[in-house]
Amino acid sequence: MLNQSELSFLSKGEPVDHFLLVKKFEIRLTKNGKEFLSLELGDKSTSSAANLWEDASGFKSIKNSLAVGDVVKITGSMDEYQGNSQIKIDSIRLTKQSDDVTPKDFLPKSLRDLNVMKKEFTGRMEKISDTDLKSLMKILFSEERFEKYTSVPAGKMWHHGYISGLIEHTLEIIRICDLMCDIHPQINRDLLVCGAMLHDFGKIEELSFEPVFEYTDRGKLLGHIVIAAMIVNDEINKIPDFPENLKNNLLHLILSHQGKLEYASPVVPKTLEAITLYQADELSAKVNAYKNVITNEIKPGSSWTKFISLAGTDIHSHGITNKSDDSKKTLFD
Amino acid sequence: MLNQSELSFLSKGEPVDHFLLVKKFEIRLTKNGKEFLSLELGDKSTSSAANLWEDASGFKSIKNSLAVGDVVKITGSMDEYQGNSQIKIDSIRLTKQSDDVTPKDFLPKSLRDLNVMKKEFTGRMEKISDTDLKSLMKILFSEERFEKYTSVPAGKMWHHGYISGLIEHTLEIIRICDLMCDIHPQINRDLLVCGAMLHDFGKIEELSFEPVFEYTDRGKLLGHIVIAAMIVNDEINKIPDFPENLKNNLLHLILSHQGKLEYASPVVPKTLEAITLYQADELSAKVNAYKNVITNEIKPGSSWTKFISLAGTDIHSHGITNKSDDSKKTLFD
Amino acid sequence: MLNQSELSFLSKGEPVDHFLLVKKFEIRLTKNGKEFLSLELGDKSTSSAANLWEDASGFKSIKNSLAVGDVVKITGSMDEYQGNSQIKIDSIRLTKQSDDVTPKDFLPKSLRDLNVMKKEFTGRMEKISDTDLKSLMKILFSEERFEKYTSVPAGKMWHHGYISGLIEHTLEIIRICDLMCDIHPQINRDLLVCGAMLHDFGKIEELSFEPVFEYTDRGKLLGHIVIAAMIVNDEINKIPDFPENLKNNLLHLILSHQGKLEYASPVVPKTLEAITLYQADELSAKVNAYKNVITNEIKPGSSWTKFISLAGTDIHSHGITNKSDDSKKTLFD
Amino acid sequence: MLNQSELSFLSKGEPVDHFLLVKKFEIRLTKNGKEFLSLELGDKSTSSAANLWEDASGFKSIKNSLAVGDVVKITGSMDEYQGNSQIKIDSIRLTKQSDDVTPKDFLPKSLRDLNVMKKEFTGRMEKISDTDLKSLMKILFSEERFEKYTSVPAGKMWHHGYISGLIEHTLEIIRICDLMCDIHPQINRDLLVCGAMLHDFGKIEELSFEPVFEYTDRGKLLGHIVIAAMIVNDEINKIPDFPENLKNNLLHLILSHQGKLEYASPVVPKTLEAITLYQADELSAKVNAYKNVITNEIKPGSSWTKFISLAGTDIHSHGITNKSDDSKKTLFD
Amino acid sequence: MLNQSELSFLSKGEPVDHFLLVKKFEIRLTKNGKEFLSLELGDKSTSSAANLWEDASGFKSIKNSLAVGDVVKITGSMDEYQGNSQIKIDSIRLTKQSDDVTPKDFLPKSLRDLNVMKKEFTGRMEKISDTDLKSLMKILFSEERFEKYTSVPAGKMWHHGYISGLIEHTLEIIRICDLMCDIHPQINRDLLVCGAMLHDFGKIEELSFEPVFEYTDRGKLLGHIVIAAMIVNDEINKIPDFPENLKNNLLHLILSHQGKLEYASPVVPKTLEAITLYQADELSAKVNAYKNVITNEIKPGSSWTKFISLAGTDIHSHGITNKSDDSKKTLFD
Amino acid sequence: MLNQSELSFLSKGEPVDHFLLVKKFEIRLTKNGKEFLSLELGDKSTSSAANLWEDASGFKSIKNSLAVGDVVKITGSMDEYQGNSQIKIDSIRLTKQSDDVTPKDFLPKSLRDLNVMKKEFTGRMEKISDTDLKSLMKILFSEERFEKYTSVPAGKMWHHGYISGLIEHTLEIIRICDLMCDIHPQINRDLLVCGAMLHDFGKIEELSFEPVFEYTDRGKLLGHIVIAAMIVNDEINKIPDFPENLKNNLLHLILSHQGKLEYASPVVPKTLEAITLYQADELSAKVNAYKNVITNEIKPGSSWTKFISLAGTDIHSHGITNKSDDSKKTLFD
Repeated sequence: MLNQSELSFLSKGEPVDHFLLVKKFEIRLTKNGKEFLSLELGDKSTSSAANLWEDASGFKSIKNSLAVGDVVKITGSMDEYQGNSQIKIDSIRLTKQSDDVTPKDFLPKSLRDLNVMKKEFTGRMEKISDTDLKSLMKILFSEERFEKYTSVPAGKMWHHGYISGLIEHTLEIIRICDLMCDIHPQINRDLLVCGAMLHDFGKIEELSFEPVFEYTDRGKLLGHIVIAAMIVNDEINKIPDFPENLKNNLLHLILSHQGKLEYASPVVPKTLEAITLYQADELSAKVNAYKNVITNEIKPGSSWTKFISLAGTDIHSHGITNKSDDSKKTLFD
Repeated sequence: MLNQSELSFLSKGEPVDHFLLVKKFEIRLTKNGKEFLSLELGDKSTSSAANLWEDASGFKSIKNSLAVGDVVKITGSMDEYQGNSQIKIDSIRLTKQSDDVTPKDFLPKSLRDLNVMKKEFTGRMEKISDTDLKSLMKILFSEERFEKYTSVPAGKMWHHGYISGLIEHTLEIIRICDLMCDIHPQINRDLLVCGAMLHDFGKIEELSFEPVFEYTDRGKLLGHIVIAAMIVNDEINKIPDFPENLKNNLLHLILSHQGKLEYASPVVPKTLEAITLYQADELSAKVNAYKNVITNEIKPGSSWTKFISLAGTDIHSHGITNKSDDSKKTLFD
Repeated sequence: MLNQSELSFLSKGEPVDHFLLVKKFEIRLTKNGKEFLSLELGDKSTSSAANLWEDASGFKSIKNSLAVGDVVKITGSMDEYQGNSQIKIDSIRLTKQSDDVTPKDFLPKSLRDLNVMKKEFTGRMEKISDTDLKSLMKILFSEERFEKYTSVPAGKMWHHGYISGLIEHTLEIIRICDLMCDIHPQINRDLLVCGAMLHDFGKIEELSFEPVFEYTDRGKLLGHIVIAAMIVNDEINKIPDFPENLKNNLLHLILSHQGKLEYASPVVPKTLEAITLYQADELSAKVNAYKNVITNEIKPGSSWTKFISLAGTDIHSHGITNKSDDSKKTLFD
Repeated sequence: MLNQSELSFLSKGEPVDHFLLVKKFEIRLTKNGKEFLSLELGDKSTSSAANLWEDASGFKSIKNSLAVGDVVKITGSMDEYQGNSQIKIDSIRLTKQSDDVTPKDFLPKSLRDLNVMKKEFTGRMEKISDTDLKSLMKILFSEERFEKYTSVPAGKMWHHGYISGLIEHTLEIIRICDLMCDIHPQINRDLLVCGAMLHDFGKIEELSFEPVFEYTDRGKLLGHIVIAAMIVNDEINKIPDFPENLKNNLLHLILSHQGKLEYASPVVPKTLEAITLYQADELSAKVNAYKNVITNEIKPGSSWTKFISLAGTDIHSHGITNKSDDSKKTLFD
Repeated sequence: MLNQSELSFLSKGEPVDHFLLVKKFEIRLTKNGKEFLSLELGDKSTSSAANLWEDASGFKSIKNSLAVGDVVKITGSMDEYQGNSQIKIDSIRLTKQSDDVTPKDFLPKSLRDLNVMKKEFTGRMEKISDTDLKSLMKILFSEERFEKYTSVPAGKMWHHGYISGLIEHTLEIIRICDLMCDIHPQINRDLLVCGAMLHDFGKIEELSFEPVFEYTDRGKLLGHIVIAAMIVNDEINKIPDFPENLKNNLLHLILSHQGKLEYASPVVPKTLEAITLYQADELSAKVNAYKNVITNEIKPGSSWTKFISLAGTDIHSHGITNKSDDSKKTLFD
Repeated sequence: MLNQSELSFLSKGEPVDHFLLVKKFEIRLTKNGKEFLSLELGDKSTSSAANLWEDASGFKSIKNSLAVGDVVKITGSMDEYQGNSQIKIDSIRLTKQSDDVTPKDFLPKSLRDLNVMKKEFTGRMEKISDTDLKSLMKILFSEERFEKYTSVPAGKMWHHGYISGLIEHTLEIIRICDLMCDIHPQINRDLLVCGAMLHDFGKIEELSFEPVFEYTDRGKLLGHIVIAAMIVNDEINKIPDFPENLKNNLLHLILSHQGKLEYASPVVPKTLEAITLYQADELSAKVNAYKNVITNEIKPGSSWTKFISLAGTDIHSHGITNKSDDSKKTLFD
């Protein structure tokens, strides 16, 4: 269990006595031809450059065994080089069992409690009325897969790009979809909710995130949409008498959920549930993305982010006080 | 008050004794050089062609006074010409006061009860906490404007394209926005809800809908987005000490709500409220559009519409039974 | 076996004594309220309108049983209505067993001999060196599937849009791919040729073509690309120790073969084989399409087609004599 | 004749005793106000930075006469600065006659033997049957022009971007075109092959490549497509009775060979030969480009290139063993 | 010399005694199998359908000799069929020498006096100071070519699409260019004005307009831009010592004048003169197009045209009185 | 009043004794932990980096009070660092009243005399015939607003991006518009000229330019187009009986003047005046932009700029002598 101050809080000159994740790693030569390690070290708050010189304690033992994704224990102090923070390393060692830290401790993570989210998800699953769909969901979200599903981020960047981001995102979509079903009884609620649960399911194979977020070869060659379709197709084929029509429509929700061909969906939404899922996904994703950008990209003294290319604009934090309190919450109560 | 069977229910040969709206109207000549009227007549269910020959009762009195948008009383029978229904007219007359019918009776209308919607809207308005915004809303949605606002369709076609479509659409957006505020306390709820209420407000001047839906010259030259911004700007300027920051942000919500420059927004969404409003608008609009298209454009024996160019695809009604009943409704209750 | 003159050769006034395919079919009413059938009848050369009146021989027996895709035997004569040919029907009957005709006889068909093409295909399959791939191909192109695969058109229109069009198209691509492998030994020949064989394999489930070319529900909801990927994935999973890397790369060829996201490939070509397959597919398709358009769309006395929207231009037949004879054939022999 | 190890093989510390091409060149000042030369030097394997200080042997004699494109003889050693290789220069001199080196020796070059390619090209030219076209080709590919044509690269980057790249590329296209003519006898083989030979002919004036690849003013203002059309037009006008139709169609092949207006073709392909040439060009170019990128842009230990913007993706080298040997070569032999 | 009322002024029932141009022509059969001619006849004001029955005077003599582009003398009367005007023909004959009419009399024509325009053009040519350019212009605009140049329309539709439209359009551009030269002395006035004169010069070979506007094969295969470049290149090559730089820049103006690759310019504007010419061309063309559309496409009682796809909008005639009189004309006098 | 040599003329080693504008400003730490100021200083000719060390005269007094937009008096000398100019500062102080310099003295400025431009503008205003429009213009261009209007640049970059750039640009457009009115009497001259005057009027609130060009929050949230429309709407509403039609058309000119939705106009040009204004704006803007780029971005010894992304090309200065003198000026005099 990690118990140390966040790296981003350390000022120039303060001592460093921290476990940190190795994010980049390269062996280089000084002008005199001596080897040194050029590192990037970080925790979930930030990253910092660091050079490990051959006279640092631990240099020899670590030089040939270190890899990106390792956690190291550092002592030293915060320094600065050309305006950027840099860690001056006095000693370094790899973690050992007894340190009780894992690379995951150093990755950004959903702010929502994971157990609460799991319970919310399984609770919603229980309320599915269609027995074919319910059986399928239980198989798909079985132990090992469910662990992975509830850990994976929704992406490498932009929205919900942190540990357990996918389940947080999916739960938002389900709430939006349920609201749309309240408004439009023509929507098949079970089908839509299952589509929402599965829409990014393929990310469990598309993304690896230990030690760092990365796309797998399989992920890059097939994409999460087709991966999900193939897994779901496999599992349905094992269920006797699963209705063909239902199968095609569920697969259609997965395949079309990015809404447009140019967003990598091989088919566009062609059913009422498919258009609902696509638009609910967009709503959840874009609002989360703007919220994160406002939090992370506005510098003190400013109310604007830099230009955010995925949004096509710089984004503004207006600072107008939110006067509506909880008693004013309303879905037209 | 209109009390007659719907035109779409009449089969070939059945008698017609109906009030109908004149949707098109042209004086033409027969091969023998005699005048006749080529008409399109309809109610909210459908429209039908009809030729009025000079020997029909009422021809003379009506020929020079008739105009598109008039309601006429017809007797005759349903006929067919080249596969399309056509009304054979025996007699025709203009409506009179005592008939108690108005052109509005012949336009498609929201299926929701208007009074319920009005109450829902004003009730939501009451729950606004920010006093500047609440005052402004009350002025903007004053008697006469409110009447118009609650009558106007959201558009000529595609989504919510019927009487009181705008308020139905707006109420959906508000519910979606309130849900997003529950999920993200960083969103300024009052600001967002007011933006939702005002986003299509300019349509009260952009569209005329009596007797038929039509864009006004002002609407075509300025567009509903700028019309709304100018009205809101005018009213804010009359309120002493309305905060400049709040004003700019509220106007930004109106201006950016179509999300992209190519969709006629002069600025793209730059705040958390603006992106939420845009995506909530999209969600409400697209789901309504698909629902309507499925209802109106699928012929008996088929499960597909024709190609719908605004959706870029044909749309499918899968017919899978909705097994989720009301007891399964959930926003993670 | 069908033995009759082609419909397109019949002039006005000539007798008709033909088997023809029913392509459209609707029951309509005359002005006097009598039923008649409005038909479109055709063979592989062309189609023609025809009205079947109640006094025609066979009207009663056929009226309620007829369906699109049936073959009927007609006697009558060629007529004309408003400049278009029309068949005047004297008598009509459904085909019977002994007529020995099938709807397929009335669909356009590849000009190449099917058995030659089958032999070419299986011969090429035999020359695959990689044993994993060769086994897989033999399973995929097993009896029933191979029958379907060698019958299906490559599409509803534009290129190779006729019976056995897919195999004709695939054989062209294989020849182009083999040439590219000769030029570039870096290309993995077995992988590429298998990708070529499978690239449009999903069309066996996407298209039905009996009695007329039509997309299936499954085809429209999933698309032939994902259908193929799912079938291939299924069969590979049954082969023990099929290499994961090979599997992912073969699936990548299927998924990326349309080259761009906006052409409905969920991933773009990311390997040397993938880019080769995409460009070879384009070359075969576009040249075939232009050839067909020039054959079918140029009217006598003109050297230009109408504007062809898929090509973005009208297309020209220059009529310059081809002076190169077979002795001049060269691949730099 | 150049006989020295490739620059890319030299490690830090190794002596340099090489002829190298000057690729960039700037006179700068040290902090103390002394002049030095900031250089980029290279051979066909790679380029490296080098600073020439005023105490180096040869500094004075070379300072004012040096120019980009010169070849210099260097002695010194390989060094490194901020992670990039840098040459430490001890002495420098310009080449002299007796060194027997030319700038061309330092540019990347086709891996195919130039004489073989020339013979292949002229051999193919001999097989043209149409006498008008054959005469024209012989004039166009006369001595001096043919020298230039067989030296020029096909472009500054992306595909076939090396000395004699254009002829290598053209020969590939011709082979593809000949194959397409075998498949489709409707294609005019002579016309198509001449179009292939001429399609990038304008590059002999668009690009200068001695001492380094560069676009000429004329090339930038007119483009190689129009340059080629003007030269061919000029030469045709000198041939009596060259058929007008043939002339227009040959020029059309040159003008339309980039396939789309946005790719700088002033007309799109409108004939069977034109579409064949465009797609054959694409096939040759894209496959060559991917092959080069895989060779040059994948770092040891990785199987992916960086993101390649012209391809819109990163590109993968799967490393699957090519099991097909020469005995399996097939064009359906 | 043509002296008759315009066809568009004739009402139903009025006698027709007119020379008219044959715009379409087809031999058809009546239901009884008798031949008749289906015609489209017109003058520069409008066109009208007409059927020529075999009992009309002149039918036999004309049936086999008539062709599109002929002028015929008609007697008969204006009629109407399904709401469209139709000419009822009593007698028909081909024109003869003594009628003194030519097909050109029936094509729309510039409203400006041709001789005034010719004088304006040659006058401007005289003021060119650069002697190389002036010589070239005089050669290019020599007798025969100048006749053609001053007759040709600027296009088949949209802007200046009438006889002598090209010179009218060119004179407008020259005036705009001269103004820009007054504002920016950095622009080379002679070069720009010559570019303006030549920018659409290729239309003399791209378009044929007798008897009706049509693109030539050469025009469709090469496009007017390249045609002009080739003619100008030819003529320059005959002038000794014409400066290479000037030649390339003049050709660049022709090639780049459509401003963007997707508008069929093979190069984009790269010089100050080129950007000026492109924008001046746009200004002249778009204003002319809107003016024509307002004149031709607004029906009585309306102030809006239909949707004009080339403009992407319907266009409005506001009817606001122009209060500025000639005394208020100003270029900041 | 500023009287000093331009910064861009100073060579390495020359003394600096200049007032300069502070364009960037950051407090940093040396490796030894001492504070220094990292500055960017400039005048209208160029900008240069400068480090202010703690031993410089004035360091202490200035460190905490300095801000971007201040003018400082510097003594020191021109230096160079890594090839870029850098100012070595000996002493620094803030300006005082008696120095008689303002930040505006350090911003680029129109080369035209401001008073001449003002007179030209007001003179043109006087010639407006329509009394409603003339009154409105006089109110809108009243004292304070006119001052701002005649100071503001037309943009931050690309065209007319300097003090008084907007009025210079507007005057060019007016001249072009007046010429178009001479050619086409159908254009309403008063309406068009007023539209030209107002088209970028909103920039007076969109841009702040003291001390440096910057977009305001209001400008970014609403855009100059809507800001202008709201101001003009406000002022018109105060004028009794201003014609509704005229108001809508004037507002339409402002709203549509960027010509396309994707260029941020909420409506496209729908009137003859609107299309004229858009194209005149384009002509003035693009020519000015090319002229500036040629002036500023071509290095000695070259005739090409770097790639200019807003133009989509590199731009050429051909250097052909302008032989046309003033006596040859012509608008067809």
